[in-house]
Amino acid sequence: MLVRFIAALSLLFTAVPAMAEAVSVDSPGKVLKVTLDLNGEGRLHYRVDRLGKPVIGESQLGFLFTDQPQMLRNFEIVGQRIREQDDTWTTPWGEDRTIRNHYREMIVDVSEKSPLRRRMVIEIRAYDDGIGFRYRLPARDSGKATNIAEELTQFRLAHDGKAWWAPAFESNREEYLYNATQVSGIATAQTPLTMVLTDGTHVSIHEAALVDYSGMNVARVEGTLLKAVLTPSSTGAKVSRTGEFTTPWRMVTITPDAPSLYAARNLVLNLNEANKLGDVSWVKPRKYVGIWWGMHLDTQTWASGAKHGATTENALKLIDFAAKHKIPGMLIEGWNIGWDGDWFANGWDFSFTKPYPDFDMPRIAAYARKKGVHIIGHHETSANIANYEAQLGGAMDYYRANGIDAVKTGYVSDAGGVQARGADGQIDFEWHEGQVMSRHHLKVVTEAAKRRIMVNAHEPIKDTGLRRTYPNWVSREGQRGMEYNAWGVPKNPPVYDTELFFTRMMAGPMDYTPGIVSLKGRGDTDILSTLARQLALYVVIYSPVQMAADLQENYEASPVAFDFIKQVPVDWDETRVLDATVGEHVVVARKERGRPDWYVGGVTDGSARNVTVSLDFLDAGKSYNAIIYRDGPTAEAGPKGKDMIRESRVVRRGDRVELAMAPGGGFAIRLSRR
Amino acid sequence: MLVRFIAALSLLFTAVPAMAEAVSVDSPGKVLKVTLDLNGEGRLHYRVDRLGKPVIGESQLGFLFTDQPQMLRNFEIVGQRIREQDDTWTTPWGEDRTIRNHYREMIVDVSEKSPLRRRMVIEIRAYDDGIGFRYRLPARDSGKATNIAEELTQFRLAHDGKAWWAPAFESNREEYLYNATQVSGIATAQTPLTMVLTDGTHVSIHEAALVDYSGMNVARVEGTLLKAVLTPSSTGAKVSRTGEFTTPWRMVTITPDAPSLYAARNLVLNLNEANKLGDVSWVKPRKYVGIWWGMHLDTQTWASGAKHGATTENALKLIDFAAKHKIPGMLIEGWNIGWDGDWFANGWDFSFTKPYPDFDMPRIAAYARKKGVHIIGHHETSANIANYEAQLGGAMDYYRANGIDAVKTGYVSDAGGVQARGADGQIDFEWHEGQVMSRHHLKVVTEAAKRRIMVNAHEPIKDTGLRRTYPNWVSREGQRGMEYNAWGVPKNPPVYDTELFFTRMMAGPMDYTPGIVSLKGRGDTDILSTLARQLALYVVIYSPVQMAADLQENYEASPVAFDFIKQVPVDWDETRVLDATVGEHVVVARKERGRPDWYVGGVTDGSARNVTVSLDFLDAGKSYNAIIYRDGPTAEAGPKGKDMIRESRVVRRGDRVELAMAPGGGFAIRLSRR
Repeated sequence: MLVRFIAALSLLFTAVPAMAEAVSVDSPGKVLKVTLDLNGEGRLHYRVDRLGKPVIGESQLGFLFTDQPQMLRNFEIVGQRIREQDDTWTTPWGEDRTIRNHYREMIVDVSEKSPLRRRMVIEIRAYDDGIGFRYRLPARDSGKATNIAEELTQFRLAHDGKAWWAPAFESNREEYLYNATQVSGIATAQTPLTMVLTDGTHVSIHEAALVDYSGMNVARVEGTLLKAVLTPSSTGAKVSRTGEFTTPWRMVTITPDAPSLYAARNLVLNLNEANKLGDVSWVKPRKYVGIWWGMHLDTQTWASGAKHGATTENALKLIDFAAKHKIPGMLIEGWNIGWDGDWFANGWDFSFTKPYPDFDMPRIAAYARKKGVHIIGHHETSANIANYEAQLGGAMDYYRANGIDAVKTGYVSDAGGVQARGADGQIDFEWHEGQVMSRHHLKVVTEAAKRRIMVNAHEPIKDTGLRRTYPNWVSREGQRGMEYNAWGVPKNPPVYDTELFFTRMMAGPMDYTPGIVSLKGRGDTDILSTLARQLALYVVIYSPVQMAADLQENYEASPVAFDFIKQVPVDWDETRVLDATVGEHVVVARKERGRPDWYVGGVTDGSARNVTVSLDFLDAGKSYNAIIYRDGPTAEAGPKGKDMIRESRVVRRGDRVELAMAPGGGFAIRLSRR
Repeated sequence: MLVRFIAALSLLFTAVPAMAEAVSVDSPGKVLKVTLDLNGEGRLHYRVDRLGKPVIGESQLGFLFTDQPQMLRNFEIVGQRIREQDDTWTTPWGEDRTIRNHYREMIVDVSEKSPLRRRMVIEIRAYDDGIGFRYRLPARDSGKATNIAEELTQFRLAHDGKAWWAPAFESNREEYLYNATQVSGIATAQTPLTMVLTDGTHVSIHEAALVDYSGMNVARVEGTLLKAVLTPSSTGAKVSRTGEFTTPWRMVTITPDAPSLYAARNLVLNLNEANKLGDVSWVKPRKYVGIWWGMHLDTQTWASGAKHGATTENALKLIDFAAKHKIPGMLIEGWNIGWDGDWFANGWDFSFTKPYPDFDMPRIAAYARKKGVHIIGHHETSANIANYEAQLGGAMDYYRANGIDAVKTGYVSDAGGVQARGADGQIDFEWHEGQVMSRHHLKVVTEAAKRRIMVNAHEPIKDTGLRRTYPNWVSREGQRGMEYNAWGVPKNPPVYDTELFFTRMMAGPMDYTPGIVSLKGRGDTDILSTLARQLALYVVIYSPVQMAADLQENYEASPVAFDFIKQVPVDWDETRVLDATVGEHVVVARKERGRPDWYVGGVTDGSARNVTVSLDFLDAGKSYNAIIYRDGPTAEAGPKGKDMIRESRVVRRGDRVELAMAPGGGFAIRLSRR
């Protein structure tokens, strides 16, 4: 019996004027408009229109709690103010050197009517290409924590259309092929969740500044009505916070096409707080090689024994290789005690300060320093953060003492959750994207920052733009990277990258670890890529730390490809998507930071595709040497992938380059100003 | 990095024989076959085939816990036994007097390999028209509770097809119109969830014996892969149990067509334990009227005041009406202190022993007793079970003392959860279908049984067949009943009943409260039904307690319709679906318990439909008076709905009756043996 309907109808029958009320804010260019309103029951809704047409329809706001009544209805607006902000800030590293932050913000104070009279604030920022909103909840009168059972935020898409999404809550990790369905075919999705509506509007839902809160997933209720579903916790409340706090920003980028959608991703940075670390000149974008791929090919092991990868001999040899080719970084996995036995389900055995006997850390560290190669450390935790946090300070000190200024962390686990030390001292199993892990990751990042160490997190929490506030958080995995092409079932199909670009890559850099020039995975299996595409990935999939992931001997056997890989930058002044269709192909151009050179990369799905690259972005009046790496006439992703042509020509601004991509192929172009 | 794949591939590479192992059980007639197997990683899966063709493909089994590693992989089968059971049992009331319970059962003991070596048992029962399986988990070695974070059971449908489902986790209640989508269009669904696959197989997923566990919903992962999602709790673990325990039975009915699907619903009773209450001769199926509809029309109120419905005068008058028409039951809502003020969001004000001053309980009780009318009490809790349970014993005693042998309970709330007293004495907000509520409902039912009181629960936990074990749990709501036709937005459309029949009604009786012969809702709005359909509902929608829900004066103005309503039985010997298509129409025949008469009811969706009723079920060699109530030539659901024709004829076994149903219409036939 839904008496709230009776209550509402009673109001109508007794002719009390409806309590409906609406306030709205336009983006600076009056492109997007966010309206907050109340219906007759005092239920808060928001909606978003683009140029007067609905994109997000009436969508609910509110909270369920574990220990107090829900905040959902019976509200009134008690205050509202609007302001505009327009500034430009400089990134210490990134895809763009400067980013403009131009929005109009509306802050709305709402209060329940009697008897509870609880209050909250909705903060809304409207940009021309996206919106963000968050809740600000006050401290509870009782001083108790605010215990959120669920956030009741909805996203009611105004139209159906196409959607690309990775399933949430499966195996406690983010690594899934995308489902390409209708919006009305979404089940429960991770964010970023990207859609192209029937009217062509491109929409991507994500969140910014996930700090001390639970990660938001997006589930479909029915039709095209979507809602937030927070990640669970072992203790009941998905989020527990004491005192006043804000939720992360719920952000929706809304643009008319694919290139402008990618450009809109900077909203995630704009919604984050400015750099808190001060001087971050020690944070260095870097190319790197590693003792790594061999373990994924199963020709080496992390564990000790005859095939141990992380030996002194192997490390020294790889340092020589890196130094010879001027690759500044070198990752070493399997250096530390703990990999023997069933580490996968356990994690308790890992020491983060004790190397294996066959790994002479001081000697290797000294040699690396002498040769100008920076070792990247590795902290595989097996998702046992009880063990990791107990050693964290000492582990970072140990790296600092050995001149290691970067660490790749990992949270692989089949234990069915992250093992964390609870308040009662017992071990709780938590989710990779829950509140406990949101805290853990920032703890790792800040402890690393104290020692001037960069962090690259694998099996991480999703990227919500905190790299702006903590610029040592340089990259993360958070999807199926190149290792899936070693042993994944299935390997990454060509379409995957064209979906990844508009979903995962809307959030931030990915340590995809490209560059497998052999085009072979484990057991001589074929990777579904061409050689030209392997090069393209360095331009298409952004990360300030980029691995030349293949074995030394494979690079030595592929000097032409390796040449490009060594040269391609990892830090950029500017990024432009020239041509793209979500789930089909991407062509992106980037200008090297601090230099006049440009790079263009293109990838296609399983279909061959001809593209025309318009060189409109080159400096006027200059000529450029273009070196083009493209699929040869017989190339196809797979065993025929190695057919690559490298050609040169001189080009100028306005020139058009015609390129044919093979099925599952791509191309890369280096444009160096003459 | 998914090292479990590495581990699996390592096994292949080192030529260790795969650990895969499979055990299976056939149903007695070798129609359904359930296979339990392990893959190379020791992951448990089950699948279900019908006549050799897959219905449910390889589907995962396992658990996530909040305080120990998941149980998902590294298992081996250590024991297995099969037995067959074939017996027939008698229902104290129901749709069928006797039910055959014929299955083959396989019990499989599984154990993790080192190091944890935890064990569990999978119990599987294969019937010719459905399967059930459950887990039996042992006590933990430590003596600690088993704290389930999630049950990892999957249901991987082998084909796409159509699906009818109500969304789960919305507003903490079950009352939603059905979504009719593809299987691949399911989001997160309540159970029963019903599908018709592309090959015509009818499948319905539900659970049986939900005792001290959290209610299971079914969410789609991607494609046609579905999985269990348990209902959350405020304390973290969705289920917490100490010692050895079994989960509810996960049941899947699988049949070739709609009529046999409905027949297969008895699986839910067969999977439950036999009657524990002993002599239940005091449990009486019953027709009833009530002080109720007026409140939904807003011409009366639950609250005190000038329009108070539950007054002595109104009660005595209705007793006279009931007695005159030999209707044995009378529901009275609004009799008790607590309805004034914002009870909807509160519930603390309710007293279950103190009537309003204008309701003279002893006088009304005495008069009812004298006139042979049984009062049905009302316990609206506003989902505040802290308040309700504190008064529960006294409330039931109070009813017993006043000769009230039945109670309708209610759990309406907009508080965002059920308010329950936690272990620490604080108020926790729980879900209607969570473990706390599964315990609460059985507490109410058993306390009621001690006083020989029947329970009809509204806004309840779903029906999982516990009426077999506790036969005083006579009915429940758990979907949108007739009250939605008073004020619902929208009102129930005609298709709804044809979906309800194959979803909600697969679980058990529904107190739908039909019989609004005025065909009018609140404010003179039209109900989307015809008059003949209102009669049909008494045959189509089963409940041992059926309300003649309309106002006294409306029945007095519709004697023909009221005649049928008074006569139609509420207890049956046998039920057969004669003709039906899920989501389109239903024709069902039922034989009155203990008498030779049969009743047939039919309803259609928004389309007019002609059906042929074959009277094959009548006794041979006898003739019957058939009284047919059918839509007249101008009838349509809505304002033209009252055009009803009543006609008589004499029929015999084998006769065929042609009937035309109007759009949104129906028919009812009474067949009395001559």
